[in-house]
Amino acid sequence: MKVKVLILPKEGLLDPEGRAVKEVLEDNGYKVKDVRVGKMIELDVEDPSQVKEIVEKFLYNPLIEEYVIE
Amino acid sequence: MKVKVLILPKEGLLDPEGRAVKEVLEDNGYKVKDVRVGKMIELDVEDPSQVKEIVEKFLYNPLIEEYVIE
Repeated sequence: MKVKVLILPKEGLLDPEGRAVKEVLEDNGYKVKDVRVGKMIELDVEDPSQVKEIVEKFLYNPLIEEYVIE
Repeated sequence: MKVKVLILPKEGLLDPEGRAVKEVLEDNGYKVKDVRVGKMIELDVEDPSQVKEIVEKFLYNPLIEEYVIE
């Protein structure tokens, strides 16, 4: 079964890639309030109930990131 | 308005980060059929109808990636 995990830098934390994207878009005339760049990991696992454990053990850093399982 | 954009390596294409994650998870006893690692970009824009254009012009590489706007 396929499960999507979204991992983003915590709101308010430095996100250099997001800032760079925001600047480029503004330079090109788009009105952008905020950009955050994170990771999206698609896991195709036998037992989807293990995904939370997998994410917390291996895939995200609780100090600087937050995650959502979809 | 906040819009999420998911950008993934095309299915079947080399995804070294995904392969590395799959190996680590298998070494730790999880049954994993596939892992794909991509980007998730959250755009907070004034005009959400511009997001498709932004993604196609600036954020993804059509040769090796596919995207979904959520």
